[in-house]
Amino acid sequence: MADNKKLVEAITSMDEDFAKWYTDIVKNADLIDYSGVKGCMIIRPYGYALWENIQNVLDGMFKATGHCNVYMPMFIPESLLNKEKEHVAGFAPEVAWVTHGGSEELAERLCVRPTSETLFCDHYANIIKSYRDLPKLYNQWCSVVRWEKTTRPFLRSREFLWQEGHTMHATAEEAHEETIKMLGVYADFSKRYLAMPVIMGRKTDIEKFAGALATYSIEALMHDGKSLQAGTSHNFGTGFAKAFDIQYLDKENKLQYCHQTSWGVSTRIIGAVIMVHGDNSGLVLPPYIAPTQLVIVPIAQHKEGVVEKATELYNSLKEKFRVELDVSENSAGWKFSQHEMRGIPVRLEIGPKDIENGQCVLVRRDTREKLFVKLENLEQTISELLESIHNSLYEKALARRADMTYEAKTLEELSTIGAEKNGFFKAMWCGNRECEEKIKEVADMTSRNIPFDEEPITDKCICCGKPADKLVYWGKAY
Amino acid sequence: MADNKKLVEAITSMDEDFAKWYTDIVKNADLIDYSGVKGCMIIRPYGYALWENIQNVLDGMFKATGHCNVYMPMFIPESLLNKEKEHVAGFAPEVAWVTHGGSEELAERLCVRPTSETLFCDHYANIIKSYRDLPKLYNQWCSVVRWEKTTRPFLRSREFLWQEGHTMHATAEEAHEETIKMLGVYADFSKRYLAMPVIMGRKTDIEKFAGALATYSIEALMHDGKSLQAGTSHNFGTGFAKAFDIQYLDKENKLQYCHQTSWGVSTRIIGAVIMVHGDNSGLVLPPYIAPTQLVIVPIAQHKEGVVEKATELYNSLKEKFRVELDVSENSAGWKFSQHEMRGIPVRLEIGPKDIENGQCVLVRRDTREKLFVKLENLEQTISELLESIHNSLYEKALARRADMTYEAKTLEELSTIGAEKNGFFKAMWCGNRECEEKIKEVADMTSRNIPFDEEPITDKCICCGKPADKLVYWGKAY
Repeated sequence: MADNKKLVEAITSMDEDFAKWYTDIVKNADLIDYSGVKGCMIIRPYGYALWENIQNVLDGMFKATGHCNVYMPMFIPESLLNKEKEHVAGFAPEVAWVTHGGSEELAERLCVRPTSETLFCDHYANIIKSYRDLPKLYNQWCSVVRWEKTTRPFLRSREFLWQEGHTMHATAEEAHEETIKMLGVYADFSKRYLAMPVIMGRKTDIEKFAGALATYSIEALMHDGKSLQAGTSHNFGTGFAKAFDIQYLDKENKLQYCHQTSWGVSTRIIGAVIMVHGDNSGLVLPPYIAPTQLVIVPIAQHKEGVVEKATELYNSLKEKFRVELDVSENSAGWKFSQHEMRGIPVRLEIGPKDIENGQCVLVRRDTREKLFVKLENLEQTISELLESIHNSLYEKALARRADMTYEAKTLEELSTIGAEKNGFFKAMWCGNRECEEKIKEVADMTSRNIPFDEEPITDKCICCGKPADKLVYWGKAY
Repeated sequence: MADNKKLVEAITSMDEDFAKWYTDIVKNADLIDYSGVKGCMIIRPYGYALWENIQNVLDGMFKATGHCNVYMPMFIPESLLNKEKEHVAGFAPEVAWVTHGGSEELAERLCVRPTSETLFCDHYANIIKSYRDLPKLYNQWCSVVRWEKTTRPFLRSREFLWQEGHTMHATAEEAHEETIKMLGVYADFSKRYLAMPVIMGRKTDIEKFAGALATYSIEALMHDGKSLQAGTSHNFGTGFAKAFDIQYLDKENKLQYCHQTSWGVSTRIIGAVIMVHGDNSGLVLPPYIAPTQLVIVPIAQHKEGVVEKATELYNSLKEKFRVELDVSENSAGWKFSQHEMRGIPVRLEIGPKDIENGQCVLVRRDTREKLFVKLENLEQTISELLESIHNSLYEKALARRADMTYEAKTLEELSTIGAEKNGFFKAMWCGNRECEEKIKEVADMTSRNIPFDEEPITDKCICCGKPADKLVYWGKAY
């Protein structure tokens, strides 16, 4: 029991210090370890299994929408990075430079990819000749490097894992359609697998990606009311195509520039999952990406037949679910705390009395509710329970977001509420850069995105008072 | 037909120029493209799909033997690389150095990982405390960088993809067992999925990995008689553990050093598949890793009902196999050449007459044999055909290896045969470094490995004539 207490005390309460609560969890739930390389993290087996599950689902969704995977070099020659001016200006300040191979100085510096638009463009210029070659729908799973000053596990680290889709199209319409489609894939994935509601919308010009015509994002609200950009989708128009001379012969045999998109989701999304669902006992994992969906803990395991029955259940359930059987010598209390810390959605307890009664106990991680269920049809009971946990995690997050979403009709109102509370703040904006910058400064928050399909609050910009048709979500961001 | 001819002519014959045949294939079968980054390649969708299939199978085999995946940083601080002396001496001359983050010079240079022993050791020192923490069985899928002077697609490039297993054990016996077990996994995988026979054996001290106690390899013989090291497994003993102070408390509460292994397979193995099975029409892919196992080509596809029937077959077969349906406007001849170039194991042809007769034609890529088969039980027919192709690819490679394996009882004999032929050369060696170096110089070949379970040819070293119990495979290597 002393050990048990120690484990629980190891986490700071989220109300006391949210940032510390977060780092306590990533460390104590064995998701990451710090490495000897400043700003880089080690993703441990439990954290990596979470990423593998995310990868598997997303990769399947990408393939179902016609995309295929490739692998580009991790290095970008300086001259290649320099080809698109806005892009290089956006990324050059935060790239890592390779200057030597072995003992020789390189003739040209290479940066470690912060993102791979330039490499994909260089390749596409090589392989796209005619309209028959279009569209090209490529994706890449890899790690990228951005030399950040301050870092936090998953949320901001010098190296992180991600996928980057890069596509080329014959027309502007197709490129736009792809950009929106992949944003939809991310939103759908967030809802169906992460139980995480997101706001889909367009970024303002200030917040868009370096070199993009338009950037779209999904934004999620964390437990502390800060918002996190969980995925982005960019429409590049023909900007890169012109810089890299990517042209195709159309059906009339005329040269045309290609229209381009890119879209990405990274290990950052694991940080979002932690901060949307976690509680003061640790992680709370959504069932469909949880490395372990169900842990079986025998009660009074020294008694005859208990471990045998638990093992029998394990063997029958492991074909259908990701199951662990904990027959270690730790106390039941220690096991409960440990598995709660790791956010396993369901704990199955079985002891001598349960065996006698042909039942077991299922304990939900999210609500701690205890269910006494028959061993008959256990598989179906568990399936339904996982689905119910998933749905209730989603509903809870949705309700919390609604509670923490505010409307402001004036800049003063926005500043006042923003000074007191964290959350999403809805306010109208005219579309002027100067107004956005002023709002950002006065209210101390950034525009998150311009949501699809939401009704305007008023018809006036909260900053200049001029006509405005853009509803913007504002917030404090990770 | 002109186009068709052009496609076929694009490949150099392997008898004329094997190296050129190889690069023609990797390029024309759309496996890779050259990039603007010297010595780095782009793995295109077809090449990457091949790697994904290899990954999926190997990853399953690793997990079935108790291993789990993690992710370590891609950078190694210079001081960390320097901790194990032999290791740094082996790798420092060929690493890429990062010296700047953004515009700032780093206080300490970082190398891009050429392999991750040092990073794993640093982490293991942190997390291993007691015998209860052992064994640790980690694996990582990632890319690594070695600054090679001359490069060739898949075989030797500055960046390549691989997996690296790194494990820690309580005893020397367990570490040895793991080293041999994982070598066995590689050999088993090569046989069952790549249809590639390999020689399992131990490397001599000259050829072993920098810092290892013992290195084991699987060696495969290519079409041109050169050998290729297709996978390695290293036993490190306690060398790194001592350099990194990785100790655990044993059951008697005494501190002990951990015993360590590492093992890896890279995209190089794709080069091996090409050079073991390919022919003058292009790739010949082993069915169980082929991205497309079966391509359906409708004959006289403008005739009524042909495309419909082909589509019907496609829909019914795609659940069970990786299938493509080629209804493009290219001529049947062009399609045949193209799919042969890409090494698709089976081509299914179906035309109006076949439909009338309730049959179709299956054409094997490896032997070009045509089979007229009934549409009933087509799934089973194809399953059996794929298995038969797999087996016959393996048998053919095995027979070719036997034909190209020579025995030499003297150094003179070895030099004479070696000057005339390429292949595996079996010869006895006393175990002395000087003898190995002399043989290497005189016969112009390197020791591949000391095979498990093979009978000695004589009892004397071919170099010094002293007693020898080590049979060695010698050869010219990639």
